Amino acid sequence: MEMENGTDSAEERWNFRQDEGEGELEKASAITVRGVLDMIMANLNLDDDRKPPVPLGHGDPSVFPCFRTSTVAEDAIVAALRSSNFNRYSPTNGVLSARRAVAEYLSHDLPHSLSSDDVYMTLGCVQAIEIILTALASPGANILLPRPGFPYYESRAACSNLEVRHFDLLPDQRWEVDLESVKAISDENTVAMVVINPGNPCGSVYTRQHLEKIAEMARKLRILVIADEVYERLTFGSTPFVPMGVFGTVVPVVTLGSVSKRWSAPGWRLGWIVIKKIIGCLNVSSDPVTFLQGALPDILHKTKEDYFSKIIDVLRETADICYDTIKEIPFLACPNKSEGSMFVMVKLNVSLLDDISDDLEFCLKLAKEESVVVLPGVAVGMKNWLRITFAVEPSVLEDGLGRIKAFCQRHAKTVP
Amino acid sequence: MEMENGTDSAEERWNFRQDEGEGELEKASAITVRGVLDMIMANLNLDDDRKPPVPLGHGDPSVFPCFRTSTVAEDAIVAALRSSNFNRYSPTNGVLSARRAVAEYLSHDLPHSLSSDDVYMTLGCVQAIEIILTALASPGANILLPRPGFPYYESRAACSNLEVRHFDLLPDQRWEVDLESVKAISDENTVAMVVINPGNPCGSVYTRQHLEKIAEMARKLRILVIADEVYERLTFGSTPFVPMGVFGTVVPVVTLGSVSKRWSAPGWRLGWIVIKKIIGCLNVSSDPVTFLQGALPDILHKTKEDYFSKIIDVLRETADICYDTIKEIPFLACPNKSEGSMFVMVKLNVSLLDDISDDLEFCLKLAKEESVVVLPGVAVGMKNWLRITFAVEPSVLEDGLGRIKAFCQRHAKTVP
Ligand SMILES: Cc1ncc(COP(=O)(O)O)c(C=O)c1O
Ligand SMILES: Cc1ncc(COP(=O)(O)O)c(C=O)c1O
Repeated sequence: MEMENGTDSAEERWNFRQDEGEGELEKASAITVRGVLDMIMANLNLDDDRKPPVPLGHGDPSVFPCFRTSTVAEDAIVAALRSSNFNRYSPTNGVLSARRAVAEYLSHDLPHSLSSDDVYMTLGCVQAIEIILTALASPGANILLPRPGFPYYESRAACSNLEVRHFDLLPDQRWEVDLESVKAISDENTVAMVVINPGNPCGSVYTRQHLEKIAEMARKLRILVIADEVYERLTFGSTPFVPMGVFGTVVPVVTLGSVSKRWSAPGWRLGWIVIKKIIGCLNVSSDPVTFLQGALPDILHKTKEDYFSKIIDVLRETADICYDTIKEIPFLACPNKSEGSMFVMVKLNVSLLDDISDDLEFCLKLAKEESVVVLPGVAVGMKNWLRITFAVEPSVLEDGLGRIKAFCQRHAKTVP
Repeated sequence: MEMENGTDSAEERWNFRQDEGEGELEKASAITVRGVLDMIMANLNLDDDRKPPVPLGHGDPSVFPCFRTSTVAEDAIVAALRSSNFNRYSPTNGVLSARRAVAEYLSHDLPHSLSSDDVYMTLGCVQAIEIILTALASPGANILLPRPGFPYYESRAACSNLEVRHFDLLPDQRWEVDLESVKAISDENTVAMVVINPGNPCGSVYTRQHLEKIAEMARKLRILVIADEVYERLTFGSTPFVPMGVFGTVVPVVTLGSVSKRWSAPGWRLGWIVIKKIIGCLNVSSDPVTFLQGALPDILHKTKEDYFSKIIDVLRETADICYDTIKEIPFLACPNKSEGSMFVMVKLNVSLLDDISDDLEFCLKLAKEESVVVLPGVAVGMKNWLRITFAVEPSVLEDGLGRIKAFCQRHAKTVP
């Protein structure tokens, strides 16, 4: 084929194609938390010097001094890099010493031991999600996801043509899984259910009893449990963290995790999938940076207890501030104090507000008027709720919550 | 749905699914260089102490002391990590200072200037390939790939349902693109052609004149040129490296690159796509490690000239050793001395060999008997050729080539 005119048309054609491609990709990614936050943030009034932006919508506190990562971890990375043993391509499953370190790290809390063969290194927990959903997809298959949840599951399921069905988390029962709804929506094409514990967005931490009930239900339904434990051990309430893998003898469990949250270093892109009997490997994806894998044994085993306890103390303090302050704002309700992760779900009573019709409008106006960023519940499947991140410096949080209060009062319906 | 029996069946079912999923993924990845090399390496006789393995099949020399990466780059990474500014999630396009640094680095050799908006950071060049092929895929579309080539393009095209058509590189014309075959195989559904320069697997470096002809042909055909310049500036012959972007005014060019080869650090997973007018972004993929991006300005701009010239000197020396030694092996022919990358293509005359029917059998037996690993041409689309990597310590290369010679002589047909 040859055409009469050159560059311009070629460029137009290319632009056109690119637009098309993007349309599709945008559709898939429109429901990411990042996408919604970008929209809210675009509404910030950056000219208002009296009100520096307060970010209470993110999932990444690493920029705050009190959440700075452990120096032991930094040292381990520097040593691995300087050794020059880890500049090469990674094996597809991950570096053996890293896989072994993850196996040991997680075995600690399990009645059985994991081996390096059960561990597959990933680019953070997001790639772990991507890999497991890709592996589970087959024509007609469906997967059960929690509502509210982490919308990256929905977008990856869409990419793999995996049908999504939602079960509810119950605000009146400490955000536990509604097991009856799990049973009701599953059928013979259901391949798995996802359990996020500690919970994003709810800040819930499930008891051993509840996890066992989930495992037993999954066993009855003959489905796999995907345990997203990216907030593993980030708990500060009365319920201790119990890994789902404890019930690996009841039902097959795939555990997903990463250093992103516990080490406050999501930019390192270092995570894992753990599953008994990984067969072969998934050659298609990219591997995590080799020297970070090389550093992982020391990161996991040598980080000092103080580092973790300092972070947990801050989170406990800010979770308290959040709960106590919100109690005093009549327009908001917080059925459960957060016990884990870095989030809490807050119910918005729009009927008390004058010119605000839903959570999205609330967040957009809040950003504009008060420079406070909060995630609207609709982004995580709960209309007229808000997800507040309290993983910020305590003084910043107090400032932000104060502005939310002022904002609500300003927009209150005047009682006739 | 509820079933009578629990764990066992659930596990069986899961295993079954997993097997299915893997079959498909294995199909897509069977033609990777890594896959073929793994097969050859499985044939190594590791018990033979007199013959330590000689790896001449890889694309990653970072383990050899003479290819150790630059200390300036290491220092830059340590500084970025220690700054604690780069532990956070990366923006989707990449960190701004990194994108700006790539734009400056590449603009140096171009008649026009790139801006940070033209650059998108990727997990090495493989993710750049993945992203651009995904963006170009649409029902019925086809893409033109070189033969011999880099089979990752074929497997990614298969993942995106992009039809592949091959044009030839001509061994008798310094592995230049057969422009007539490009014209013959393209049609109105052709979206792009891939040009790898410096060339893997051929070690070719294209002249400015040849690149211009390619650009003009692509312009006539109204297709995009994807310029894979991952071996950018790794040249040691008489032809200097000219980036395809020089002809960006003739035809739309997308340039792919990374630090993997020039800095001998493929484990860092740090690459880029450069394209004028990137519209929006591709939110779906993972981002490269943030602190590596933070280090990139110093890596690109502060690495000392000696580091590069030392590497180039080694490559020039080993390319010479390779060419000169192969000339003396009657069973092998090397139509073109390598001028770039780290590879050379060598033609195998199987008719002179007794019990070896093709390149794959040659490589399998060579691994078993001589512990030398070489990539069979079939892995890169050229049956009965071999791709030899000369990016190893010179003494190792001499040892390996000596064993190849002995192997050939031992398997020579006895002339009657
Ligand atoms: C529930 C959940 N899973 C997975 C992830 C992704 O983790 P990573 O940063 O390790 O990719 C997040 C990040 O916020 C998350 O909240
Ligand atoms: C032609 C070509 N393109 C791309 C790549 C991938 O590069 P990276 O290691 O930066 O992902 C390679 C690696 O060998 C290659 O040879």
